[in-house]
Amino acid sequence: MRFKLTLEYDGGPYLGWQRAATGPSVQSTLEDAIEKLTGARAEVVAAGRTDSGVHARGQVAHVDIEKLFEGWKLVEALNAHLRPAPIAVLNADAVAPEFHARFDAIARTYLYRIINRRAPLTLEYGHAWRLASPLDAPAMHTAAQRLLGKHDFTTFRDAHCQAKSPTKTLDRCDVERIGDEIQIHCEARSFLHRQVRSMVGTLAEVGLGKMTADDVAAALAAKDRTQCGPVAPADGLYLMRVHYAK
Amino acid sequence: MRFKLTLEYDGGPYLGWQRAATGPSVQSTLEDAIEKLTGARAEVVAAGRTDSGVHARGQVAHVDIEKLFEGWKLVEALNAHLRPAPIAVLNADAVAPEFHARFDAIARTYLYRIINRRAPLTLEYGHAWRLASPLDAPAMHTAAQRLLGKHDFTTFRDAHCQAKSPTKTLDRCDVERIGDEIQIHCEARSFLHRQVRSMVGTLAEVGLGKMTADDVAAALAAKDRTQCGPVAPADGLYLMRVHYAK
Repeated sequence: MRFKLTLEYDGGPYLGWQRAATGPSVQSTLEDAIEKLTGARAEVVAAGRTDSGVHARGQVAHVDIEKLFEGWKLVEALNAHLRPAPIAVLNADAVAPEFHARFDAIARTYLYRIINRRAPLTLEYGHAWRLASPLDAPAMHTAAQRLLGKHDFTTFRDAHCQAKSPTKTLDRCDVERIGDEIQIHCEARSFLHRQVRSMVGTLAEVGLGKMTADDVAAALAAKDRTQCGPVAPADGLYLMRVHYAK
Repeated sequence: MRFKLTLEYDGGPYLGWQRAATGPSVQSTLEDAIEKLTGARAEVVAAGRTDSGVHARGQVAHVDIEKLFEGWKLVEALNAHLRPAPIAVLNADAVAPEFHARFDAIARTYLYRIINRRAPLTLEYGHAWRLASPLDAPAMHTAAQRLLGKHDFTTFRDAHCQAKSPTKTLDRCDVERIGDEIQIHCEARSFLHRQVRSMVGTLAEVGLGKMTADDVAAALAAKDRTQCGPVAPADGLYLMRVHYAK
């Protein structure tokens, strides 16, 4: 039986989604919990292979489990076996055997959180990027609109990106200030490796007055990685939702 | 020079605000940082002596510092000496020598956060109370209104409370649901020891359908600690703001 799992996790303690030889990953922690529950090793395939330290509110993954489970019982049992790892299964649905968490996804939504204040973070430590200098959020939003649409995003692509093409279509990039927090909401069918953090780092340069909206448009058009601002840290990034057609 | 400090902290690692022989407190951590900065030991007096594990977004404290500092420089220097403790000085204002953080406060605002879902907490771990059974937030709000006004709050008072009188005036107790989070906002001139957590635990019984608004009113009128619901855990409680007259 194939299950579609909806997952929340604190990415802080992990080397990222993907199994790594050098330390714990979200994937291996989940696979260990499933093995403890069912006695069988099964591969968990995620919609988005989040980077080291990146969080998720609504990651989606699929896995094949031979034992019969009702969805809610699988959720309870997996959460019991995951404890005390900061990974929670929010939902488990039995799906068709051809369902693929990654290939069937039609869109991904990310949130990036900046706390714009001088004081160090306490309650949000590890869960946001603290930027001390005042940021102009409306200017960041205006610049962000220049990134929308179908483009070659080479400028905002990590050197280790394995995507075949650097062309992606960005459907949403909204910047809003809520008190001392700046939230950046991005949505696309799919993203290049570190694309959101690269765009956020560049938009932060706009917020600081070091770049203009025209500079951002020119950086995009240049298709040149050296035109990208500093890549924003993983702490502030959350995979919020993965969208499917049905 | 007397300074009024506005503080944020994660109460998780501390035995509470107050110096304790048995472990680290917010107060002693701050006093250590001030001593490292100035070379002199000084007592830091808080508006609210938060309990073990209780958080603050806007605790206020006063302290006398002989060395001359501009407010913002004191903030930066203290935050540097506090690192990596999850305590941040948000603001420091030079005040009159008779200012007293505790006695001059005219109101305190607390927030209590409940995450109402089956899955264990990951990103909010230690920062909210997870309650798995569905809660009726409007019923909790209705019952909460029965607690407003001037009452003998003996029912909602911890056995170790040192206040001279159990009579307090509760000015606000609003319960609202935001997705799977239930926020309870309480305001009063001052509170008894564990009053908010005692009220929240009792309101949760209402949310679960185990008590009615009339039961809550009767429990209050009984002035009997045994009529209180289970005390809600410290994890979800935040001292949000301390109000002063000027």
